[in-house]
Amino acid sequence: MIIVFTGNGKGKTTAALGQAMRALGQAKRVMMIQFIKGPWICGEDKFLKKFQIPPSQFQIFKMGKGFVKILGDSLPLSIHQKAAQKGLRLAEEAIKNQKYDLIILDEINVAVKLGLIKAGQVLKILKINPPEKDIILTGREAPKSFIRKADLVTEMKEIKHPFQKGKPAVLAREF
Amino acid sequence: MIIVFTGNGKGKTTAALGQAMRALGQAKRVMMIQFIKGPWICGEDKFLKKFQIPPSQFQIFKMGKGFVKILGDSLPLSIHQKAAQKGLRLAEEAIKNQKYDLIILDEINVAVKLGLIKAGQVLKILKINPPEKDIILTGREAPKSFIRKADLVTEMKEIKHPFQKGKPAVLAREF
Repeated sequence: MIIVFTGNGKGKTTAALGQAMRALGQAKRVMMIQFIKGPWICGEDKFLKKFQIPPSQFQIFKMGKGFVKILGDSLPLSIHQKAAQKGLRLAEEAIKNQKYDLIILDEINVAVKLGLIKAGQVLKILKINPPEKDIILTGREAPKSFIRKADLVTEMKEIKHPFQKGKPAVLAREF
Repeated sequence: MIIVFTGNGKGKTTAALGQAMRALGQAKRVMMIQFIKGPWICGEDKFLKKFQIPPSQFQIFKMGKGFVKILGDSLPLSIHQKAAQKGLRLAEEAIKNQKYDLIILDEINVAVKLGLIKAGQVLKILKINPPEKDIILTGREAPKSFIRKADLVTEMKEIKHPFQKGKPAVLAREF
């Protein structure tokens, strides 16, 4: 099953991690490839270490070079592109050898948006995924072709964010 | 921080579980109270057992009596109400004794919607939560008073669901 978590709100990568937790509980093997995040250590990395989850069951690959074109990034785009292409090859290999039951392509939607990889390249590797295996694609502004290809799509929509707290426009918004 | 995950799409409880994974990685203690789910065993329960996560670090309390008024539920509403009220008292105690850093009140929005507990009762216990501790409230159709009270709100919006696949109306929807 192909799943897309997109939208501008918090919860996309987090939901993918929750799915990973459930999959681990069901003795499934999980791989996460992070396309944007650099080598910094997050809660999920500490979690793997703390509870000694074996890499054969859950492994996180940090293929990103950090934020692209924002927050002081001064790397040439080609460096980011090479890193993302490497992540994509890793994903392709993993899908082909079927070692994992759930593959999370974290922030891959953003990698496409930023021109690091092409949507067509991603669709090509999604095509070879057997239906009994799950792939989750996360990141805001998912390409429409991913939405079309996916079986399940949720838009995580920001209704209120800590930085906005107190702004009446946000409080007045209803859904 | 008070966080609300609402909306009709998949990913609300899952995102709460992902947040739990990250919190566990940061040596935080997590409690989840499930207000609707009955005693059946889910991936998250199997996960706790499989990786021998100590209850002092992550504990799940199943306080629900299963689905309410749907899928063959024949229990009187008062039974569901008592169970939910018990869950609420458990939450209140946990917030007061500060044994946990993250408390997930799973499907509590739905428990309010179904009339099992009152929004005012929930707001009362949210008020006593210290700002450095996190509470996540999940479930579709969150009361507006929860949105107002929360620091962070994401609406998980269903864009595409496996049961709908192939329906052109869904494919044509854009965001």
